[in-house]
Amino acid sequence: MDLIESSHNHMSSHDHLTPLPLDIMTHPLQSMLNPGTIAVVGASPKPGSFGGAVLANLAQHFRGKVCAVNPQYKEINGYACYPDLQALPEKPDCVCIAVPSRAVPDVLLQAADCAIPSAIIFSSGFAETGTPEGIALQNRIAEIARTRGIRVLGPNCTGIVNVRSGASCNILPSVKLLPLVPGDVGLVGQSGALGYVVFQAMHRGVGFSHLISTGNSSDVDIADLIDYLIDDPHTKVIATLFESVPDGPRLRAALQRAFEAGKPVVVYKIGVTQSGQKAALSHSGMLAGDAATYQALFARTGAIQVDCFEALLETAVFFARSGTPTMDSGVGIISGSGGSVVMAADKADTYGISLPEPQPETAAALRQRLPAFASFANPADITAESIRDEGMYEECVEIFAADTGFAGIVILMPSAHGEPAIRRAQGISELAGRLEKPLSLVWMNEWYEGIGSRVYDQSTTLAVFRSLDRCMSAYRLWFEYGRKRRELANQETLGHTSDPTEGFDQQAATGQARDYLQGFSPGACLTETQTRHLLQIWGIVCNEEALCTSPGQAAESASRMGYPVVAKIQAPDIQHKSDVGGVKLALQDEQAVRKAYVDILNSVSGLDLPNGIQGISIQKMIEPGVEMFVGTRLDPAFGPTIVYGFGGTLVEVLKDVAVSLAPVSAQEVRRNLDGLKMRKLLDGVRGAKPCDIEHFAQQVARVSEMAAALAGEITEIDINPIVLHNKGGVAIDGLVVRSEA
Amino acid sequence: MDLIESSHNHMSSHDHLTPLPLDIMTHPLQSMLNPGTIAVVGASPKPGSFGGAVLANLAQHFRGKVCAVNPQYKEINGYACYPDLQALPEKPDCVCIAVPSRAVPDVLLQAADCAIPSAIIFSSGFAETGTPEGIALQNRIAEIARTRGIRVLGPNCTGIVNVRSGASCNILPSVKLLPLVPGDVGLVGQSGALGYVVFQAMHRGVGFSHLISTGNSSDVDIADLIDYLIDDPHTKVIATLFESVPDGPRLRAALQRAFEAGKPVVVYKIGVTQSGQKAALSHSGMLAGDAATYQALFARTGAIQVDCFEALLETAVFFARSGTPTMDSGVGIISGSGGSVVMAADKADTYGISLPEPQPETAAALRQRLPAFASFANPADITAESIRDEGMYEECVEIFAADTGFAGIVILMPSAHGEPAIRRAQGISELAGRLEKPLSLVWMNEWYEGIGSRVYDQSTTLAVFRSLDRCMSAYRLWFEYGRKRRELANQETLGHTSDPTEGFDQQAATGQARDYLQGFSPGACLTETQTRHLLQIWGIVCNEEALCTSPGQAAESASRMGYPVVAKIQAPDIQHKSDVGGVKLALQDEQAVRKAYVDILNSVSGLDLPNGIQGISIQKMIEPGVEMFVGTRLDPAFGPTIVYGFGGTLVEVLKDVAVSLAPVSAQEVRRNLDGLKMRKLLDGVRGAKPCDIEHFAQQVARVSEMAAALAGEITEIDINPIVLHNKGGVAIDGLVVRSEA
Repeated sequence: MDLIESSHNHMSSHDHLTPLPLDIMTHPLQSMLNPGTIAVVGASPKPGSFGGAVLANLAQHFRGKVCAVNPQYKEINGYACYPDLQALPEKPDCVCIAVPSRAVPDVLLQAADCAIPSAIIFSSGFAETGTPEGIALQNRIAEIARTRGIRVLGPNCTGIVNVRSGASCNILPSVKLLPLVPGDVGLVGQSGALGYVVFQAMHRGVGFSHLISTGNSSDVDIADLIDYLIDDPHTKVIATLFESVPDGPRLRAALQRAFEAGKPVVVYKIGVTQSGQKAALSHSGMLAGDAATYQALFARTGAIQVDCFEALLETAVFFARSGTPTMDSGVGIISGSGGSVVMAADKADTYGISLPEPQPETAAALRQRLPAFASFANPADITAESIRDEGMYEECVEIFAADTGFAGIVILMPSAHGEPAIRRAQGISELAGRLEKPLSLVWMNEWYEGIGSRVYDQSTTLAVFRSLDRCMSAYRLWFEYGRKRRELANQETLGHTSDPTEGFDQQAATGQARDYLQGFSPGACLTETQTRHLLQIWGIVCNEEALCTSPGQAAESASRMGYPVVAKIQAPDIQHKSDVGGVKLALQDEQAVRKAYVDILNSVSGLDLPNGIQGISIQKMIEPGVEMFVGTRLDPAFGPTIVYGFGGTLVEVLKDVAVSLAPVSAQEVRRNLDGLKMRKLLDGVRGAKPCDIEHFAQQVARVSEMAAALAGEITEIDINPIVLHNKGGVAIDGLVVRSEA
Repeated sequence: MDLIESSHNHMSSHDHLTPLPLDIMTHPLQSMLNPGTIAVVGASPKPGSFGGAVLANLAQHFRGKVCAVNPQYKEINGYACYPDLQALPEKPDCVCIAVPSRAVPDVLLQAADCAIPSAIIFSSGFAETGTPEGIALQNRIAEIARTRGIRVLGPNCTGIVNVRSGASCNILPSVKLLPLVPGDVGLVGQSGALGYVVFQAMHRGVGFSHLISTGNSSDVDIADLIDYLIDDPHTKVIATLFESVPDGPRLRAALQRAFEAGKPVVVYKIGVTQSGQKAALSHSGMLAGDAATYQALFARTGAIQVDCFEALLETAVFFARSGTPTMDSGVGIISGSGGSVVMAADKADTYGISLPEPQPETAAALRQRLPAFASFANPADITAESIRDEGMYEECVEIFAADTGFAGIVILMPSAHGEPAIRRAQGISELAGRLEKPLSLVWMNEWYEGIGSRVYDQSTTLAVFRSLDRCMSAYRLWFEYGRKRRELANQETLGHTSDPTEGFDQQAATGQARDYLQGFSPGACLTETQTRHLLQIWGIVCNEEALCTSPGQAAESASRMGYPVVAKIQAPDIQHKSDVGGVKLALQDEQAVRKAYVDILNSVSGLDLPNGIQGISIQKMIEPGVEMFVGTRLDPAFGPTIVYGFGGTLVEVLKDVAVSLAPVSAQEVRRNLDGLKMRKLLDGVRGAKPCDIEHFAQQVARVSEMAAALAGEITEIDINPIVLHNKGGVAIDGLVVRSEA
């Protein structure tokens, strides 16, 4: 029986978005990932060799045709063996290559000559070595793939397992020992070993559709494989684990297509500490590192990011069982242990999951069913009686499931007590198939595979977690996913584009900005005054400023603006103006301005300033408000990113910012501000009035458009701070870095 | 064979602190927790009854003598049955009581009459019901225990299992199915169910000394049980899980004794969200809630707090295997998968674990042993060759273990491949017994109990984790524990007391403060001026202030202090002075002060102020600095606690504070400040000079002494802010709440 067919999609009636998948038979990777005939070049009778391991795995699992290729043998373990690919009696769909690295290009060329459409290269000794020879060899392979139209997985990969066909083109020797359990999670990873240790969950009954390792991604990469699995009817959820991808935009496109097709992609991105990252000139550079940019990508494309290895499979199974939520929040929790009920309330709080009180009918029904000393709240403690009373869990779940306040139900299962535990598990699993909302179970027991657990693990109707944290975290991700799906259904923008302000001519601004930037050398860092000029072209609200070259001009400018004013040195070589006595604040009258002008020049007179002094900037002093930050960075893989949040000196200290791909909509900015640690400050504390969040969100959106439009000219923008008031806000300092070359 | 005897205490040679345990035979709870003869009152042949379950469990596991008590039977399942306790042929050490709640007091009295030293009461229907009858019944039991000298566990508990003697006085029916594995973790919990689901780890080979559930804690509580297990020679680590304890000081004493005896206590405290907590007048009240106070208790007593259920057992086993570290930091990590190496670096970074580069000899030795494409860094990737090459893991661990830069070694184990996996596991476990430093293993496999895992789970020489997060978290806790042990060895204070400033007469200050506080009614909230007076008695540095009752007096005070000054309304009914126009800042001259005086009085003239206006406070305006917070709260269970960290308006927004039991030493304050999110701000950012952390730490210590000395008079103190400068700092606002009654 095909397990996927019996699986129940709870939410299908509510989710009209999903377009029909393309016909998987026409997908360009079909020959590689679902081959009918497989050739193994480098086949060997030695079980310890790559070729030997692949043959043994295929012998155990594969029901299609296998041809061994090795001039040294006529036959290997019952498979006919041929001297080369030309000698094969029929054209294979896919060739597995397990020969030394130097021999690989020739084998690949032969395969192309035979019009074999795909190849999986296990051999190592390519770019992963870091040697010039290895890199050259890999480039050769990529070139053959590109020019001859043969699709290549690897090199340096462990290969694939197609669970339904048994095509286990894989060099891990223990693949042959796996009980292949057909299921709906497609698993794609860079590392073969890590994918495999997830895949081994089949030993406890969890089903998969595919296991695929990309290795060095010379041709086929994570993006291609996601694209394939979107169209694979057996795959309901794609789980993927990687450190980096060779082509950012293609990953973005694949994730976006998956989201639009309603196929959840659960991602564990490893490599979040970038010790080797290039030192950045700006805060944005520091704040929007590689990990933050990937996070922004996942947020933008609706991919579901988990933050630990153990969460990858559990969350993928949860999404496969849970469809799309129709509500924003609300989980009902049932347990047979009072202690675990307290624990669940703690963890729900930690992950921001609301646990609404049961509706009156729900509480009344529980009262009828349960002993008087039970707790009829949420979480509900159905007491240890549930160990003896076999139907109690099921009946209480049904009662909870009827409560319209709950989007999903969670059972905390502490017991694993003999036969009744198995019967209970079967009952609960069947019930889950009948419910209109998802049911998850937290297996609390330190006996990980204790009695009854297997029924839950292999259930196609409910999701099992072995951690309350991970269960609550998955619910949080699910509600977030649901919100994005609804936005898509409502034709909202999902933040894919920003919402250009009416009457603002972006094209004109872009042209004007480009002209202005022509005047700067590659890599130049614009002064505050120059930055202000550029920002104003783009309609960013800045404080009033006059660059003055005499005390008289300064005094006149100040009078025009109105007191109090600020005086600041403007010199390309001075980055930290106040450190060198280059800033005078709260100047109240003409006399004070004239004195400040002279004092500042005296302060900096001893400094070495090869690029000279441009003047003293006189600025209208701004009333105190909340200091915000907005900046942009050009990510090498994903283009312009935008960073926004709390600014001033705190930006370095707290890093309380959000990162999005640019451009970003004001709506998305507002939502992400809600997730910041100091968010409450914007509402006004200790009697302060609330800040004009809308102004800030619009300004961030505008800066993001600017970064996107000028991606060729600018690598970094920092605006710090924008002082935010009850009405409006004002940018009062900033810098812009011109692109290199 | 007794597994504990073969266990290797790596660090024993470095740890001279541990005093010899007392003779366990003389411990008052010995008769209850290690009984030789057990009577079961309410014994029954019905397997579903409490009495029946206890008998069945004892029949399966216990090698001592069991007497059934029930007037309805002469014999139950082979046990002679007696009508009552008086009829027993010999005096039991412990009586198990499984009769309806109303009959319990009589049975307990009978037991006392027979001089039976201890009882375990399973029956429910006591204080947990919340009914007056239930509470009265429990009080009766407590009274009998107290007056008749019989020790009582429960009521409403699941009982105990003494693993070595098999004394399974426990009502959980599946206890009889457990393979009792003697080990060194003693497990104590409020909830019987949660303790039991941890205890079921015995099914995968993990050993325990005891399982004990306290239930309602009418007599014996968590503190007593910790005290017992300190003296139990079979218990190396105590693991405990609870929501609250009936007696805070006794828990504190038990934890402190455990720490001094070198017996680690690992705690999972549940119930951290206190929705029902009393609304507090001060920030301190809000910040130092129940959960924060328990955390402060654990920090003070050296208890090891974990933050999730799954971490409790793993961390306990880790401490049982790892002794006390002799170094501050440094872990070496070895894996056979490149992907997991990246993951490990991420997680080490998350938990602040340093991964020093291998020393040159280490790297050289690895190069000799490993293929050229391995990575000889830390984490080391010993490559997938380690699957085939059976000795590779062991040899690389030995090489890493010889590196003096590593306090401990971690293996990431992705593979579970047939027989070699078992042999490898045995080799690694034996090696761990020979090493001078602890070895931990992260079982990465989603096949939780896959091949080889059992060898690791039942190993008495290494610790297994099924999560990298939990492994790194345990190492962090271990380094912290080691630091505290060294402080104890060095006769440092461990922060148990503060370090009173020379020349400060605490006794005189206490007397003076008490006299002053006499003047306030119970529950009164002192004004800023009154608070300043009290703080100055205790030597807290405050800004200069004069409470003025005329514009002339205000002007004169300002001239004396020097401009600029601040004017603030002082009225007991005005909590938020600036909201009502009651504050004027930066007054530069006499004229401004006189005007401010009048303006403030005008502003508040419309307000209803039943307690009148005390005057206008003129204060010297303080130069900007970093705003800090310090406050105290009187915890009902643990007495005065102190809260300190970043202040100003941010205290509400970010809650970036630490909580300690009062008094606290300046040294402990400094250390806890290091853990705050905004810590970097104190070092001076953007050219600002570093703050005088020492001044702040001393002031916090002083306030903590004040809170401890005046615990009978004061419930809350808030000082917000203390403005911290490069040299010194100044408290500029605060409030004190007088005790109720």
